[in-house]
Amino acid sequence: MALVVQKYGGSSLESAERIRAVADRIVATKKAGNDVVVVCSAMGDTTDELLDLAASVNPVPPQRELDMLLTAGERISNALVAMAVNSLGAQAQSFTGSQAGVLTTERHGNARILNVTPGRLQESLDEGKICIVAGFQGVNKDTRDVTTLGRGGSDTTAVALAAALNADVCEIYSDVDGVYTADPRIVPNARKLEQLSFEEMLEMAAVGSKILVLRSVEYARAHNVALRVRSSYSNDPGTLVSGSMEDIPMEDAVLTGVATDKSEAKVTVLGIPDKPGEAAKVFRAIADAEINIDMVLQNISTVENGITDITFTCPREDGPRAVEILSKLSREGNWSQVLYDDQVGKVSLVGAGMKSHPGVTADFTEALRDAGVNMELISTSEIRISVLLRESDLEKATRALHDRFDLGGDEDVTVYAGTGR
Amino acid sequence: MALVVQKYGGSSLESAERIRAVADRIVATKKAGNDVVVVCSAMGDTTDELLDLAASVNPVPPQRELDMLLTAGERISNALVAMAVNSLGAQAQSFTGSQAGVLTTERHGNARILNVTPGRLQESLDEGKICIVAGFQGVNKDTRDVTTLGRGGSDTTAVALAAALNADVCEIYSDVDGVYTADPRIVPNARKLEQLSFEEMLEMAAVGSKILVLRSVEYARAHNVALRVRSSYSNDPGTLVSGSMEDIPMEDAVLTGVATDKSEAKVTVLGIPDKPGEAAKVFRAIADAEINIDMVLQNISTVENGITDITFTCPREDGPRAVEILSKLSREGNWSQVLYDDQVGKVSLVGAGMKSHPGVTADFTEALRDAGVNMELISTSEIRISVLLRESDLEKATRALHDRFDLGGDEDVTVYAGTGR
Repeated sequence: MALVVQKYGGSSLESAERIRAVADRIVATKKAGNDVVVVCSAMGDTTDELLDLAASVNPVPPQRELDMLLTAGERISNALVAMAVNSLGAQAQSFTGSQAGVLTTERHGNARILNVTPGRLQESLDEGKICIVAGFQGVNKDTRDVTTLGRGGSDTTAVALAAALNADVCEIYSDVDGVYTADPRIVPNARKLEQLSFEEMLEMAAVGSKILVLRSVEYARAHNVALRVRSSYSNDPGTLVSGSMEDIPMEDAVLTGVATDKSEAKVTVLGIPDKPGEAAKVFRAIADAEINIDMVLQNISTVENGITDITFTCPREDGPRAVEILSKLSREGNWSQVLYDDQVGKVSLVGAGMKSHPGVTADFTEALRDAGVNMELISTSEIRISVLLRESDLEKATRALHDRFDLGGDEDVTVYAGTGR
Repeated sequence: MALVVQKYGGSSLESAERIRAVADRIVATKKAGNDVVVVCSAMGDTTDELLDLAASVNPVPPQRELDMLLTAGERISNALVAMAVNSLGAQAQSFTGSQAGVLTTERHGNARILNVTPGRLQESLDEGKICIVAGFQGVNKDTRDVTTLGRGGSDTTAVALAAALNADVCEIYSDVDGVYTADPRIVPNARKLEQLSFEEMLEMAAVGSKILVLRSVEYARAHNVALRVRSSYSNDPGTLVSGSMEDIPMEDAVLTGVATDKSEAKVTVLGIPDKPGEAAKVFRAIADAEINIDMVLQNISTVENGITDITFTCPREDGPRAVEILSKLSREGNWSQVLYDDQVGKVSLVGAGMKSHPGVTADFTEALRDAGVNMELISTSEIRISVLLRESDLEKATRALHDRFDLGGDEDVTVYAGTGR
């Protein structure tokens, strides 16, 4: 008997009809001879509606109270799914994060899981019951206050329970039926991948793939929990994320796909003295403001000797704040100028095959050249190449790379929409 | 420094605007030098909406899951009120029923409070914080499952916390500004009472006054918690419910008011053998079906010797079921007939003054006679007279009694709407 953890996103639970469909799948999984633990996100737009309500009574609500508020969303979907499963004649029992033993740090709004003590779940499973657990939430180990896990929290709940219960697989259901070689809205013949390694999935998530949240993939990799990305609208087996890149025989390693990202902005500081410590001032100031930077470029000193420029990318939502901070530093340090550009996009090619196939970078840059796309920044890892370019060139570049590396399938796929929390 | 417990009903919390108004009042109470504990019902129609959702996934949802679902409503209002209070610069902290130490029996959907251990609330109060507690919910002492307290549960939560914390007063806020001598929609010059005893309030609640739920008044009386019924829309001091009828000097005892009730139906069983045990069969069958009966009349045996009739009233929603059960018994026992009538109403006069004023019953019946109203059943307690009559006569009878016993004030009052949970 296998133990299957299933996580259903908000769009999979957005109506009574969808909840009944999810219940059918849960019961079918149980009847196929598996033990089943289900993790639910809040229904559809519930979380956004609750956030709106909060904003209307307090523009800066205390995080502890926000957590108390938002966790109600998952309790609702959780109880409804348990009811729907019961109506099909199976035995289900719902659990809050606290009841499921999800113990976290005290950081409200973005707590980390410290430990999972799934004693009550195990008891319930032993009694033949299906466990339905509210995702996204835990309980502060010390104060017993309710906490939330931040973006992608329900995925993380599912992976953490799968690890703690030693589950055979953790299935992540949304309205997307797997991991694709590119966004099918941009590349119609994008191909669904049958399998990829944790490292490849991590790179894809890090550079813009919205299918899985980086943090849950990291957790799955650390605890070796096999993930399966599936659609709650079909019976397609989806995409399996498991195993290390190291285990793939070199000659079998291939390129995974092309990811796109329009969430970043480019900040450039001109005329910084090219001496030790000046660049550090820039990055310390940005770090102190808790702004994450992604790509970085320091120009070779220009003809006016001893002066350089620094360019980096950061989330667009943090861009104006970064500019404000750096403009202040710029005045103090007599730097020449701070430039801001949020009309940029990033395209990345990911794949373990990159290691064993020389010439990928050459092919990459030639493909963009042939498409008439200018590159503004380049960054690479062992299994990834990313370039920053004009946002208006992003789709053209994505298609050019997808074609050049022959990633497509024979057929065009049906376009999908966004994914749940 | 006094300790004030305030309970706000659903209509007082139905929008962000109303929540901010409630927060203003809470902070004002704190600033006046009181410790404050607040108990919140779910916002507006939340509970009904959740019940509809439940019905759409399972026509008979398991009670445990229904409790998990419904308690989300109070968590939402609870967190929002805490946020609104915080936005006014006061410190507030929200608590679930479980966090507030409300320990109950295991009966989901209608649990009884076994014990209240308000240690966390006391700590929070000692730190100068305002405590906001989710009403209507508790936690099963043994299993730690979430439970709900049934109808009027938030009132009961408030009274139980007031008792456990030894509060000076428990204020019950709704859209009604006190206890009236009659429903102002029926009797325009109904007068708001400044004060009444627990016994009088119990009788009023038992015979149709919707202001306070019987169970919470019983709890308040048992623990001697002074209740104040107030409106969240005004600064009117409302009505104080406190003290025993025994403490009122005889000569000061007055009549409290006239209550009306349209929620009952009348069931009559004709032609029952007038011998020991036959009537008991009727009431045992009704009790086994968990149907509450209110008024009862057994006729004097009629001319056909040894045959009698039994009439009783029960909630209208249970009427058809009662008739079905008794019709079956009737066929088995060869009784002649079962009659059902749900076009009845009940009018009651309540007041400690009844004990010391002979002739109240005579005045009562004469008032109805003068109004041309026929009485179908009469029942009395030490401080109450109730009669069953045609539903269409109910308002006429109420006005006649209110006039006869001179209960009205000099002015007509503004008509109010229903009250929250």
